[in-house]
Amino acid sequence: MKLERSKNILTFLGFDNEYKDANIVVFGSPFDGTTSFRPGTRFAPNIMRNESFGLETYSPYLDKDLEDIAVFDAGDLDFPFGNTKKVLEMINTFTQNIVKDNKIPVMIGGEHLVTLPAVEAVHKKHKNLHLLHFDAHTDLREDYMGEKLSHATVVKRIWDFLGDGKVYQFGIRSGQKEEFEWAKKHTKLTKFSCAGLKEAIKEIGDAPVYVTIDLDILDPSIFSGTGTIEPGGISFHEMMQVIKEIKNLNIVGADVVELSPHYDASGVSTAVACKILRELVLAI
Amino acid sequence: MKLERSKNILTFLGFDNEYKDANIVVFGSPFDGTTSFRPGTRFAPNIMRNESFGLETYSPYLDKDLEDIAVFDAGDLDFPFGNTKKVLEMINTFTQNIVKDNKIPVMIGGEHLVTLPAVEAVHKKHKNLHLLHFDAHTDLREDYMGEKLSHATVVKRIWDFLGDGKVYQFGIRSGQKEEFEWAKKHTKLTKFSCAGLKEAIKEIGDAPVYVTIDLDILDPSIFSGTGTIEPGGISFHEMMQVIKEIKNLNIVGADVVELSPHYDASGVSTAVACKILRELVLAI
Amino acid sequence: MKLERSKNILTFLGFDNEYKDANIVVFGSPFDGTTSFRPGTRFAPNIMRNESFGLETYSPYLDKDLEDIAVFDAGDLDFPFGNTKKVLEMINTFTQNIVKDNKIPVMIGGEHLVTLPAVEAVHKKHKNLHLLHFDAHTDLREDYMGEKLSHATVVKRIWDFLGDGKVYQFGIRSGQKEEFEWAKKHTKLTKFSCAGLKEAIKEIGDAPVYVTIDLDILDPSIFSGTGTIEPGGISFHEMMQVIKEIKNLNIVGADVVELSPHYDASGVSTAVACKILRELVLAI
Amino acid sequence: MKLERSKNILTFLGFDNEYKDANIVVFGSPFDGTTSFRPGTRFAPNIMRNESFGLETYSPYLDKDLEDIAVFDAGDLDFPFGNTKKVLEMINTFTQNIVKDNKIPVMIGGEHLVTLPAVEAVHKKHKNLHLLHFDAHTDLREDYMGEKLSHATVVKRIWDFLGDGKVYQFGIRSGQKEEFEWAKKHTKLTKFSCAGLKEAIKEIGDAPVYVTIDLDILDPSIFSGTGTIEPGGISFHEMMQVIKEIKNLNIVGADVVELSPHYDASGVSTAVACKILRELVLAI
Amino acid sequence: MKLERSKNILTFLGFDNEYKDANIVVFGSPFDGTTSFRPGTRFAPNIMRNESFGLETYSPYLDKDLEDIAVFDAGDLDFPFGNTKKVLEMINTFTQNIVKDNKIPVMIGGEHLVTLPAVEAVHKKHKNLHLLHFDAHTDLREDYMGEKLSHATVVKRIWDFLGDGKVYQFGIRSGQKEEFEWAKKHTKLTKFSCAGLKEAIKEIGDAPVYVTIDLDILDPSIFSGTGTIEPGGISFHEMMQVIKEIKNLNIVGADVVELSPHYDASGVSTAVACKILRELVLAI
Amino acid sequence: MKLERSKNILTFLGFDNEYKDANIVVFGSPFDGTTSFRPGTRFAPNIMRNESFGLETYSPYLDKDLEDIAVFDAGDLDFPFGNTKKVLEMINTFTQNIVKDNKIPVMIGGEHLVTLPAVEAVHKKHKNLHLLHFDAHTDLREDYMGEKLSHATVVKRIWDFLGDGKVYQFGIRSGQKEEFEWAKKHTKLTKFSCAGLKEAIKEIGDAPVYVTIDLDILDPSIFSGTGTIEPGGISFHEMMQVIKEIKNLNIVGADVVELSPHYDASGVSTAVACKILRELVLAI
Repeated sequence: MKLERSKNILTFLGFDNEYKDANIVVFGSPFDGTTSFRPGTRFAPNIMRNESFGLETYSPYLDKDLEDIAVFDAGDLDFPFGNTKKVLEMINTFTQNIVKDNKIPVMIGGEHLVTLPAVEAVHKKHKNLHLLHFDAHTDLREDYMGEKLSHATVVKRIWDFLGDGKVYQFGIRSGQKEEFEWAKKHTKLTKFSCAGLKEAIKEIGDAPVYVTIDLDILDPSIFSGTGTIEPGGISFHEMMQVIKEIKNLNIVGADVVELSPHYDASGVSTAVACKILRELVLAI
Repeated sequence: MKLERSKNILTFLGFDNEYKDANIVVFGSPFDGTTSFRPGTRFAPNIMRNESFGLETYSPYLDKDLEDIAVFDAGDLDFPFGNTKKVLEMINTFTQNIVKDNKIPVMIGGEHLVTLPAVEAVHKKHKNLHLLHFDAHTDLREDYMGEKLSHATVVKRIWDFLGDGKVYQFGIRSGQKEEFEWAKKHTKLTKFSCAGLKEAIKEIGDAPVYVTIDLDILDPSIFSGTGTIEPGGISFHEMMQVIKEIKNLNIVGADVVELSPHYDASGVSTAVACKILRELVLAI
Repeated sequence: MKLERSKNILTFLGFDNEYKDANIVVFGSPFDGTTSFRPGTRFAPNIMRNESFGLETYSPYLDKDLEDIAVFDAGDLDFPFGNTKKVLEMINTFTQNIVKDNKIPVMIGGEHLVTLPAVEAVHKKHKNLHLLHFDAHTDLREDYMGEKLSHATVVKRIWDFLGDGKVYQFGIRSGQKEEFEWAKKHTKLTKFSCAGLKEAIKEIGDAPVYVTIDLDILDPSIFSGTGTIEPGGISFHEMMQVIKEIKNLNIVGADVVELSPHYDASGVSTAVACKILRELVLAI
Repeated sequence: MKLERSKNILTFLGFDNEYKDANIVVFGSPFDGTTSFRPGTRFAPNIMRNESFGLETYSPYLDKDLEDIAVFDAGDLDFPFGNTKKVLEMINTFTQNIVKDNKIPVMIGGEHLVTLPAVEAVHKKHKNLHLLHFDAHTDLREDYMGEKLSHATVVKRIWDFLGDGKVYQFGIRSGQKEEFEWAKKHTKLTKFSCAGLKEAIKEIGDAPVYVTIDLDILDPSIFSGTGTIEPGGISFHEMMQVIKEIKNLNIVGADVVELSPHYDASGVSTAVACKILRELVLAI
Repeated sequence: MKLERSKNILTFLGFDNEYKDANIVVFGSPFDGTTSFRPGTRFAPNIMRNESFGLETYSPYLDKDLEDIAVFDAGDLDFPFGNTKKVLEMINTFTQNIVKDNKIPVMIGGEHLVTLPAVEAVHKKHKNLHLLHFDAHTDLREDYMGEKLSHATVVKRIWDFLGDGKVYQFGIRSGQKEEFEWAKKHTKLTKFSCAGLKEAIKEIGDAPVYVTIDLDILDPSIFSGTGTIEPGGISFHEMMQVIKEIKNLNIVGADVVELSPHYDASGVSTAVACKILRELVLAI
Repeated sequence: MKLERSKNILTFLGFDNEYKDANIVVFGSPFDGTTSFRPGTRFAPNIMRNESFGLETYSPYLDKDLEDIAVFDAGDLDFPFGNTKKVLEMINTFTQNIVKDNKIPVMIGGEHLVTLPAVEAVHKKHKNLHLLHFDAHTDLREDYMGEKLSHATVVKRIWDFLGDGKVYQFGIRSGQKEEFEWAKKHTKLTKFSCAGLKEAIKEIGDAPVYVTIDLDILDPSIFSGTGTIEPGGISFHEMMQVIKEIKNLNIVGADVVELSPHYDASGVSTAVACKILRELVLAI
């Protein structure tokens, strides 16, 4: 029987190691300040922790068990509301600390803009960093309604310091005509599917990689709990295939973003996000 | 900054031309009076206008942009409640006016019965009219609970004046045994899928075509917001493929019907309907 | 017009024969006492009856009509709450009575544990009974939190009396590592899909078969109304294929379990369950 | 244990007498064809039957038990869709039959227009009929968007044959200015509350009374499942008080209308409707 | 019948005058950037316009009709996301323009912070401005998680320039101890109810008043669609009473804020907000 | 900024003391095994912890702050599913341990049966124990569908060892006629309201009291998230009044039960439960 002497602890299922023992540090960035349509990704990390208990620790996809690896769940960062810049600084500092301790940061969003400071922090250590970007949207605008820092500009902002040839984009099915044109010259963009992944993996080789999964890459039939719904996405099976393929890359950071759980009352989107996080962490 | 001098205008995204300049006229027929199971398609056109702002105007499927074509959104017809005949007359008259001005009517339902008066109006001008009918249901009953005019009889009523060999049906997966038997002699019906579409396109050639898309042709995994749920439908990808294929036909009228948005609180069904409408209009 | 002299009768669509005339007896076991995550399967049989009126009696998949076969719907068993053993006894007795009258029992769950007493009852008559088990979960634990009788142990409990080589499992995508290991020796388990079905059908031949369909074998995109959501399941089309394939087996009992309808407000899960039940009954 | 020989019967809790023994006949009129805002009252009678099992048969308000009276539940009338006139005729005929057999009809709506043919049928026998009308809305328009027969005109249509001084209205808080003006001369209308009820009861004395309860008289805090939401209604306690007060009247017919259960996912509105129906029947 | 020549216009019911003719200008400020709990007030103004068609233009509370007054609905301001300061500037400029034209601004929020720039703009013209503040929360923090500009500090920021004795607060039932202490010296705060309103009205006399209604002053039984739920609020009847009482004040600006419509799927909260807006505008 | 070294801790807001320092120990009993209608109270304690962050620690009702008292939150007991007796034993043992350490147990249900073992444990120490029972239901059945241990029999089971004159019941509005009759002789039952509370408090004086609050005593307008909905309950204001009145009693144990949070998607019921728990703990 449970001892009544210790406080109630809530971590994502199986992410129950101590910080010092862990190779991977999971944390939540519950920010949705630049979301343009339906907000609510701020609720994702905590709901994922709560719902993770419907999962098993064992993955029949990878034939691996969370009990065999060491993951620490740091909980959520505690953001001010309405101050985008300060939020980004907090994520940056927090990620840098993890990286300094030679641990791999895995962030749970929040909206996609949270990826920017995390990649910046990882890039500080890994100068030859590549980005694998899974998403329905290009996220390549120069600004969005006048704002340079936005979920709709985040990959462009990352490109600003990674430069040409380092950014791979998959599953893209929505954006402005100009963004698709621009991508032809500066990123490697695969429309609708992840068809180009195998080639990308070959090109990247041993270089350090940051993997960012905007969950709206999935079809809304399986992932409706997100801000901007884009029919025509990849299936869960394809996502599992992606994770199997990237597991031999040198992943030095990762995130899973854009779950807005209140918009899917059935709980399917949260279950999908939980399983993808489990597989992603097992793959790293 | 927005000028405060003009009233608030709400059109479907990008359908913002003036009537005189437009080639295509979109309008809503918010009628669900003969719906037999779950009503609510009356809400579809207006919710689609409101939610269309989650869309981009650019289609990566067709590589076309709504900004390059001229569409006018006339809003919704203002129907009396409980008087089926009068509603049908109003749609007929309204569609005739559009056709007379040499514009193409694209109607947003409402339930499927609204297609009858629109096709009648178009047929008045285009005597050799063909019908492309995408649907989960046969809609070929002679009457439904004694009523000749019903969403379950609508294609039979259209056949009454188009006659044999002009009606093509796709995706059909529900109906009475008698309807399937009848279809063998009088329409060209493809069960479950849109497999017969290419052949149909060849047969039709340059003849004028009215395209009616009952959105429940889609699988409820991606389109649950409809009156009668029929698992086993086509995917969104298949729907996009259909639209690509029909774009070279001589389409003189079209509609998208049977979205019942309140039954899909996630908003996915509405997003699907919006994207299909965007693609359909771009294809015309 | 309806006569006002007889009480209101509610049966599943088309299951309206008298007991004495029926070959198949459908009944509900609204029990969810060992559900570990989201309860509510108790509501399934009744909601399925109510929603079945959205169905047609004719199946275009099997080209058969419910009007051509004789099915009796006995309603739901009336269980005490909180007493697992008594519930199991009641199901066992009820099923035995059906079997004694040379009718085929088709049970609507409830959670998966209800399958145990039904299979026991059928096994009493059919000693060489085989089990076809469609599910997302192994259900092969020896105990669950100390309990021998649980939805998570049900197939292990059935194996206890059927023994090795009689249990076929399909679509399994979640369980403990130990369960998957154990299954390698004692059951015939197909991970993720129903790929091994054809071979299983050959092996079984004329032997009596009990078919248990845990609806969570389906992908949550089409079936979200269940206790524990497991992305990565089979599609509705695959399920229809399964039913077509098993229709030549000697099915002596069957069930459809684990619909928890309140968790899918769109009604899709209930519609899916209804159609699978219609097809299953037509296939028997 | 339940006998498996008889078909599944579904009546409202405790309304399980045979027709010949019953003094009160309950039936459903699932019609919502003239609903102008949110449809769905068609689902009310059946959902009320299903949910009535959360009730006790004993009322601590009236200190009476359903087991001590004889009520028959005839189920729902089976209406054609889209044909308002035929629906009204069916209700009229059905109600006349009940009245002829010297039983009291208690109808479950459906929308408010169903009250018209029921009152007509009762009026045929009881020439001095009075109407007690509980509602948020005046329902006194001469026509609604050109239609004479509408939920918004129903009390005016009843006044057409009952005449001045026979119609009492309570709880009214929405309508056109003209309707309120008209009511001053022709009906006895109490705004916002049921304050005038005691006096009305005195005036009516022994005369036959038809009681129609549009459930939207209740505040949406306790009854949100309705077509047109009108904040500012009476409380459930006040409704119970009303029923206590009218129980000595000579009630010869009654109805409870305008529950649209899908719009209140919590189930509160349905529970409220069930309890009011139980109390109303006990009061008669 | 509707003419098809003019674009679809969407205004709040009855607010259909031209700008030049109007005395009152309604506009939406769809901003929820500092919301700390459940976001979504950005959707309020547009959903209110859409749902306002369930209202009548006539108020039986005030015996007034919207058709007798001149209101212009300017639609929503078009904000950048994630830039709080710019949003506040846009509201300020927009409100100033209205005030300059001698019209009364009535703003639909959005979260409560939008009140700050509107009051600033009105205060520029009306130096002796008083604030009537209806709310569940004190909103008197000096900063919130380090931010000076927040929905939780908004009344403190207004006090910064209005000063002592000008701010009246009603219905307050949640806040920090320090805020309640501070209010004792600087504002006139009534806990839980609006008991002090009559006295406040006397004190204010002819002075110009800005009325800000945070709808969460209402009990969540009638208003659940808001960010932070505080049981124990005032009833809708009490709110109507408040509006009746303030109608003789010299109101020079007003707003209705904090409806987060997605959190109340029943639509009650939106209906409540619409009716309060109708009454407020009629009272001005 | 948050330190990343410590695991994520989740306690109810402000219940963050260490066990040794605490006077009050809060724990969750997530059991709903005998729930007869809508299950799901198992989710209550955890959701209440998550949602408690919408609360302030300060109560303007009692003018007290959670920061001034010492409460420890032990998390939830970890129950087996489907074994009612074992669950009751676990609660009993756990509560005894708290009582032995001279701390006051405050339990969060779960369904009402969990109160039985907690009261038994407290009674072991406090022989003259009285029970204050707030509820919509009598809970006085001798058995429910044959079961002695049920949410519908719990107060009868407690009476078995407390005996006549020790049980006070308030707000009761549903039950069998026999239960109400029995209560007249053996308990002190107030129908519908808490009118008899003041007198009860006088009678009890200094005797030890266990307070059990079945939240369905509240009207479903403010508390719809529960298994069996009973319109006609007390208001939140009345509940606050109750807590103010009992704060001078010698409370030695308490619980708050029957929140079934999934049935109230708006979150109001959870917010109500959280505030009542805060007030109850502050009152003790």
